[in-house]
Amino acid sequence: MNVKTLKWLGGIAGCLEIIDQRRLPAELKMLQCTNVKQLYDAIKTLAVRGAPAIGVAGAYGAVLSLKKPPAKASLKQALAILKRDCDYLASSRPTAVNLRWAIDRTVKRANAFVEKHPSCNLSQLRKIVLAEANAIFNEDVQMCLNIGKNGSNFVKNGFSILTHCNAGALATAGQGTALSLLYEAKKQGKRFKVFADESRPLLQGGRLTAWELKQSGIDTTVICDNMAASLMAQGQIDIIIVGADRIAANGDAANKIGTYSLSVLAKAHGIPFYIAAPSSTFDLKTKSGKDIPIEQRPADEVRLIGNKKITPDGIKIYNPAFDVTPAENITAIITEKGVLQKPNSRKIAGIFSF
Amino acid sequence: MNVKTLKWLGGIAGCLEIIDQRRLPAELKMLQCTNVKQLYDAIKTLAVRGAPAIGVAGAYGAVLSLKKPPAKASLKQALAILKRDCDYLASSRPTAVNLRWAIDRTVKRANAFVEKHPSCNLSQLRKIVLAEANAIFNEDVQMCLNIGKNGSNFVKNGFSILTHCNAGALATAGQGTALSLLYEAKKQGKRFKVFADESRPLLQGGRLTAWELKQSGIDTTVICDNMAASLMAQGQIDIIIVGADRIAANGDAANKIGTYSLSVLAKAHGIPFYIAAPSSTFDLKTKSGKDIPIEQRPADEVRLIGNKKITPDGIKIYNPAFDVTPAENITAIITEKGVLQKPNSRKIAGIFSF
Repeated sequence: MNVKTLKWLGGIAGCLEIIDQRRLPAELKMLQCTNVKQLYDAIKTLAVRGAPAIGVAGAYGAVLSLKKPPAKASLKQALAILKRDCDYLASSRPTAVNLRWAIDRTVKRANAFVEKHPSCNLSQLRKIVLAEANAIFNEDVQMCLNIGKNGSNFVKNGFSILTHCNAGALATAGQGTALSLLYEAKKQGKRFKVFADESRPLLQGGRLTAWELKQSGIDTTVICDNMAASLMAQGQIDIIIVGADRIAANGDAANKIGTYSLSVLAKAHGIPFYIAAPSSTFDLKTKSGKDIPIEQRPADEVRLIGNKKITPDGIKIYNPAFDVTPAENITAIITEKGVLQKPNSRKIAGIFSF
Repeated sequence: MNVKTLKWLGGIAGCLEIIDQRRLPAELKMLQCTNVKQLYDAIKTLAVRGAPAIGVAGAYGAVLSLKKPPAKASLKQALAILKRDCDYLASSRPTAVNLRWAIDRTVKRANAFVEKHPSCNLSQLRKIVLAEANAIFNEDVQMCLNIGKNGSNFVKNGFSILTHCNAGALATAGQGTALSLLYEAKKQGKRFKVFADESRPLLQGGRLTAWELKQSGIDTTVICDNMAASLMAQGQIDIIIVGADRIAANGDAANKIGTYSLSVLAKAHGIPFYIAAPSSTFDLKTKSGKDIPIEQRPADEVRLIGNKKITPDGIKIYNPAFDVTPAENITAIITEKGVLQKPNSRKIAGIFSF
């Protein structure tokens, strides 16, 4: 996977370059975010998306924030700006917990550094925060590899795999979460084919998963979301693998709208249903799925495709970005730290004391 | 419902005017089919669609066919052309059985008339076939009303109803099948709201159901197909009502792709799942769902929305137009002749000896 979803360019005064995913698959264009507002908009409008990727992007957002205060600003002033900007960035997407997690980590690092070195200068602080963002980036790359290795055994030779939305290289700094299993299985010489749900309304499956799997030479067929059940009934799906945006303490998992539907259908057809996600996706403060805030997105995402209006004027639209799959529908959660079969509160609490 | 989905204009040399449903909801344009080829294309490209509507259209296709032979042609020649044209028209959509049923009925009527009146002229034959097509049209209007009356009791005051694709006025000569229940319930003063699956790939729900329900002032919200399960889990769906394109002798029903998915989800959530369809949708020669031919449609229906390409070049697409819902997932089938609770072979055989 040689997809550079995010890349920091330059030093402490640099910028974050991302693939503008709104333009894929029509064109591969890079977008440079030089300030916090630009990054907020890029995250909000899904130019960069995927829980791990927006976490990494958020961490670099802290670096962008620290470009703001003038050289003579006090550390206290700089930290206040950082705090405000980071809260602003975190508000761009409320469901994925990785964003908040990565941002909090950089802010915490900045505060700890200043506490320990009260006479440091702004430039030193900037370097520290950039180093932290780079660390988060590098850990994400490693996390993807480890998830792939931990889960590749679920991908057997000859399998047909269904996936939803995009939990691939385009959703992370590395080679993805759910799709990382496929990339690892391919390295091991396994042959398999993939059905990619197009994933309405924003078509991350049809646009992004199809695009990156095609880059990798993996046999991929795009279907409309409502066709998945029919394939299951025909015995054409062996396993389902998806990502997650937030996993509650009891194992309930929020992911792209349509995931819950697949989990119910999988159960009805006796098909294993796997979630692949880094441990930063777990939010132990959220007890169960019903406590996960579900982002409501603009009606125009359903109403318009390009400039084409596909519903009558004035009709109501319901457009939640996510739904929640209860733990009981999940065969296993694959993390970089290991595999949680039949996830529950006890096993999940265990992962944080590995 | 004052939607004129189909209308025969003029006498035996007339033409079939249809609403060009490919253009809805952007514009309400009429399309006049003056010959068999035009009508074939209109059915094939879904300018006119919906099992009952294409049945009525097919019947008028027989009238168009009989415009072809010159005045001095023999009756035998005319009947041969009619047979060939009707087979051609029936081949336009292989799944819906109403098309074949209506066409066969007009051909049979033509043959019976010639057999009884071997010295009749071509003009007389044309009149007989037009009368038969008009009869099919009028029966369809009445059928819609009766389905609505037979099923409206399932729509309770305060209900939220989910429907898929379009089984409304735009799918029939009258006020629809599934949606007829809603129109009748509205006449009875009931208040309810409707969630319309957009129904990828051709968006008959988002485009057509939303359009006609809005005309009728029924509270309607469009959702993407993959959002239905989430609404069910939230307790926001009381019943599901859809149409059908062919019902086998055992009650298995083919309908728009995505219907099977809803039936499985309905079962998992304890939600009643109704099919509304005329008795002409039943095909006793088809034993079960696995014997129903499923039409495969062009990849471009998934790949393109308007002129916008939404998948990468060269990616594979799977695009079946229908799926099959097993009888065991169907709470009841509502026909113009009565309601079949828990449909099975015995009850279905009974409907044809009412």
